[in-house]
Amino acid sequence: MRQIDFFYFFGSAYACLSARRIRPIVDAAGVSIRWRPFNVRPLMQENNVALRTEARKVEYIWRDIERRSALHGLAYVRHPIWPTDPELLHNKVGMLAASEGWGEDFTLASCKAWFLKGFALGDRACLEHVLAQFGKDATATIAEAQSARIAGLYEENTEEARRHGVFGSPSFVTDDGEMFWGDDRLEEAIAWAA
Amino acid sequence: MRQIDFFYFFGSAYACLSARRIRPIVDAAGVSIRWRPFNVRPLMQENNVALRTEARKVEYIWRDIERRSALHGLAYVRHPIWPTDPELLHNKVGMLAASEGWGEDFTLASCKAWFLKGFALGDRACLEHVLAQFGKDATATIAEAQSARIAGLYEENTEEARRHGVFGSPSFVTDDGEMFWGDDRLEEAIAWAA
Repeated sequence: MRQIDFFYFFGSAYACLSARRIRPIVDAAGVSIRWRPFNVRPLMQENNVALRTEARKVEYIWRDIERRSALHGLAYVRHPIWPTDPELLHNKVGMLAASEGWGEDFTLASCKAWFLKGFALGDRACLEHVLAQFGKDATATIAEAQSARIAGLYEENTEEARRHGVFGSPSFVTDDGEMFWGDDRLEEAIAWAA
Repeated sequence: MRQIDFFYFFGSAYACLSARRIRPIVDAAGVSIRWRPFNVRPLMQENNVALRTEARKVEYIWRDIERRSALHGLAYVRHPIWPTDPELLHNKVGMLAASEGWGEDFTLASCKAWFLKGFALGDRACLEHVLAQFGKDATATIAEAQSARIAGLYEENTEEARRHGVFGSPSFVTDDGEMFWGDDRLEEAIAWAA
């Protein structure tokens, strides 16, 4: 029989959710469980303070992305370059694209460039690669993306996200104001909206 | 047609996962989507540094717990008291229980006391309430929980969690060393283990 370790801390609400759900799931799966209380506090102090300096958490995140890509049948080729886009340039071109109705396609092409082709978001080469797919001139498009109009739209989105209580990316907000944080809340957010 | 706002940041890997998955899901659900790039950085700086001082994130977490309790058919009565267990006393009694084979039942009873009855984990009254359900004398049990033996076992669990790269609670580690973080990875962890 396969086995799973359930490390949990008394005082973690999520751990209580898991504790209350895990029994039928492990039983149905034929998995045995070890209940292992542990002290999460020093681990959080060591690892949860600032993502860029949290080597362990960053390593986990990429592994998680790899697993969840496989789970959803999405290609995953290499560890994308991170952090990215220091000057928010790729974000601003994305804002321009969204304001003109090609935001979704630009986003998907950008993800492909980043995840599958190893481009660094924000690099001129990456933007040229992506924009060429839309027949856009990189120089003109980048100049337009740096206009006051685009800066204003981007700031509007950020302010509205703040008003909805958003604190991370991705977040989903339904039209009745319900906010969901994270890729793992995607289906829940969609079901709520539907 | 219902609508959802998709706030996303270029440079968030999870946002790319969502971006790549969202189209068929929203289409099947009959939900329209707005693609809204935004600047997550100031929001993370404002909210993601230390959970106890992050009012917005803490508020979100309880709402998330409430929604996911409903999703899974679990009762949810009130905002449990948090943070809890300043001296790790409840954790140590949980460690004692785990070491004697009644860890799962003690955990479930503790969650019920915390989530549904409004007890504060770590309080003597809470431990008395829970331990009485097992016919245990609170004074003797708490004394035993504070022994060197229990401290050693608790530290062993914590060290093993650290070795597996754990940085949060709950986390799940399969017997081939795969680590999953969070209640939202529960099913994935179980499937991996199976």
